[in-house]
Amino acid sequence: MAAPVSPLAVALPALAALPGVRFGATAAGIRYQGRTDLVMAEFAAGTTVAGVFTRNLCPGAPVDWCRAALSSGRARALVVNAGNANVFTGKAGAAVCKTTAAAAAKLLGVPTKQVFIASTGVIGEQLPVERITTALPKLHESLTENGWEAAARGIMTTDTFPKASTRTAQIGDGFVTITGIAKGSGMIAPDMATMLCFIATDAKIPAHALQRLLTRGVAGSFNATTVDSDTSTSDTVLLFATGQAKHPKVGEDGGRILNDFARKLDEVLLDLALQVVRDGEGAQKLVRIDVSGAVTAKSARRVAMAIANSPLVKTAIAGEDANWGRIVMAVGKAGEPADRDLLSIAIGGTWMAREGTVVAGYDEAPVVAHMKGHEIHIEVDLGLKSGKATAYTCDLTHGYIDINGSYRS
Amino acid sequence: MAAPVSPLAVALPALAALPGVRFGATAAGIRYQGRTDLVMAEFAAGTTVAGVFTRNLCPGAPVDWCRAALSSGRARALVVNAGNANVFTGKAGAAVCKTTAAAAAKLLGVPTKQVFIASTGVIGEQLPVERITTALPKLHESLTENGWEAAARGIMTTDTFPKASTRTAQIGDGFVTITGIAKGSGMIAPDMATMLCFIATDAKIPAHALQRLLTRGVAGSFNATTVDSDTSTSDTVLLFATGQAKHPKVGEDGGRILNDFARKLDEVLLDLALQVVRDGEGAQKLVRIDVSGAVTAKSARRVAMAIANSPLVKTAIAGEDANWGRIVMAVGKAGEPADRDLLSIAIGGTWMAREGTVVAGYDEAPVVAHMKGHEIHIEVDLGLKSGKATAYTCDLTHGYIDINGSYRS
Repeated sequence: MAAPVSPLAVALPALAALPGVRFGATAAGIRYQGRTDLVMAEFAAGTTVAGVFTRNLCPGAPVDWCRAALSSGRARALVVNAGNANVFTGKAGAAVCKTTAAAAAKLLGVPTKQVFIASTGVIGEQLPVERITTALPKLHESLTENGWEAAARGIMTTDTFPKASTRTAQIGDGFVTITGIAKGSGMIAPDMATMLCFIATDAKIPAHALQRLLTRGVAGSFNATTVDSDTSTSDTVLLFATGQAKHPKVGEDGGRILNDFARKLDEVLLDLALQVVRDGEGAQKLVRIDVSGAVTAKSARRVAMAIANSPLVKTAIAGEDANWGRIVMAVGKAGEPADRDLLSIAIGGTWMAREGTVVAGYDEAPVVAHMKGHEIHIEVDLGLKSGKATAYTCDLTHGYIDINGSYRS
Repeated sequence: MAAPVSPLAVALPALAALPGVRFGATAAGIRYQGRTDLVMAEFAAGTTVAGVFTRNLCPGAPVDWCRAALSSGRARALVVNAGNANVFTGKAGAAVCKTTAAAAAKLLGVPTKQVFIASTGVIGEQLPVERITTALPKLHESLTENGWEAAARGIMTTDTFPKASTRTAQIGDGFVTITGIAKGSGMIAPDMATMLCFIATDAKIPAHALQRLLTRGVAGSFNATTVDSDTSTSDTVLLFATGQAKHPKVGEDGGRILNDFARKLDEVLLDLALQVVRDGEGAQKLVRIDVSGAVTAKSARRVAMAIANSPLVKTAIAGEDANWGRIVMAVGKAGEPADRDLLSIAIGGTWMAREGTVVAGYDEAPVVAHMKGHEIHIEVDLGLKSGKATAYTCDLTHGYIDINGSYRS
């Protein structure tokens, strides 16, 4: 049953306690017995929160719950379950969220609306909420500041390695920590890949400024990655700021004082997003695609994602084939301004096609060598204007078919 | 090397001579020796033509050539080669088209601009045009009215079965024939899937009316199908009307007199398009997706194509898993107006989800039985307005990875 660890796995970093955050994990038997499937976090009073969610228009009930809860900008707890995504469950699904939040709120003595919820697992089955409410009291008692690693492992489903990232940032003359964990693109059951990411910092940052940083950071990290072009109904990124660190006051709008914090947050987000791609279903290679020379950054992004999502490009990479013809095809199908006769393409730093034709005397040898590695770099210059963007993906292999083409139960 | 014939293959129909069309096929050694790779057709004087081409913005030189040639609405010949797509070949590629057309035009004594050209095969390599011009004189001598089957087989690349379709239509009190052949989604080398389709009729129809019928027909057939969401740089559908049949005169704009012809043309187009999907790389199942209840037909089409292109839906079908949760996901990711709580989904005629939740007492047995068949039917009712659309695709299997993930040479 257990899949081999991804060849692209990275080691779990040391995860120090972060003032104002306590984590715990347990097995609640939500779908399977004896498997950790429930994670809880408690945040210090005064914690602010920001969130970014799936763009899927059929989101799960927990996404609806979090979007509503986010309006106060305050958070005191997080409850995450695996085994059941609580998606396409109608009014009963919304009630499950409320019951879960109320149970956690009662244990902690905090407002129900300051409890955040995320679920991952099968779709269209009612979540047996009593298994969560039964397990919560003991889980609450086990919460600890040293619970980060347990949480990182506890939210794993068919992830083949735990995912975490941590950085120190400076705000004025004060130092703060940013630590995050993520899961995905593993599956439950198997069913649908879902990406969940939870980040905390001991910085004291107003919710409005926090949201601005998170939205911008996700655009350049999680929203610049794709495993298979499908968009889960449950994708969730939450960022909590406990305010326990000492540093100069940050205003409602943040501003320049947060420059270093923003940079380090972006690093944590990109690190976690790439770990998710590295654990993409069946992934054998991590692929970075840089598009330049587009008419706008938005146009460059669309071209980069068209390449990243092309099954023909992804299978060529799996076959270690430097098939730039398929990259030409993917550029053309993006529907963005492009001129075939200005197009240039490089793989692994070797420009194989320049301005619409193959480079004279093109030597495939260094490109073939590059294709055999675990990290593939594709560059496309559209030769039009200065718009640029980067996308990340993995290759498409038999492993993907094995994982997703087998029966659920 | 030879792949087994698709389990979804259909038998080649009997293909009678069509007045005004003569076909031939030969091995010109364009990329491989001893493989039929050159097909030629001659059309009677007065033949009109219509064409629809790839929407890929980096098309091959032959697509540029045909688009320009189409302006006169007249055709006297067609030259098709496999082995080299003449794509991303710069100015030399355009010269290849001109040289090929001029050679065929000289043999037939017709204008160069009335010779149509299509190429399929590797991208980014110069096409050795002298191999075409050397082979053309003998090929020209071999043209015959009984050459349809040879042509259908001659344009095959890694297609596992030849594709043709024929219908009789009535125009006023006259009867005409419509016969077409197609290739795809096979590959050369292997490289990129390309779909080529050539249809002829002995009806006498002005080019303007012919184009209108073809454009409309392709929207409901070839442009409603997808194998893997990738768009070839060479896709071409050409329709030739030789005018050799006797029937009442058709005006510039066509009109009601062409109603039966249009219906039969649509049948030929859909038949050929579905044969291409049936021969999709690795395809084990043909999938029809009907979306209703959308705000517009265009919106319904986008939702249907989002389902048809979803790797998670396609691998579930390959695994014979009635995983409607993935269909919910694909509806949501389409970005079109949809309300999770109004959504209904059926597989094989069994409605498993109604208005946002699983149907009470849903019995999976008939759906499981349906999933084991070769033809899968998915219905999605968005429950909003009356927009509807249909899309066709195949499943995503190990065969697709085998074919596309192996090295080119």
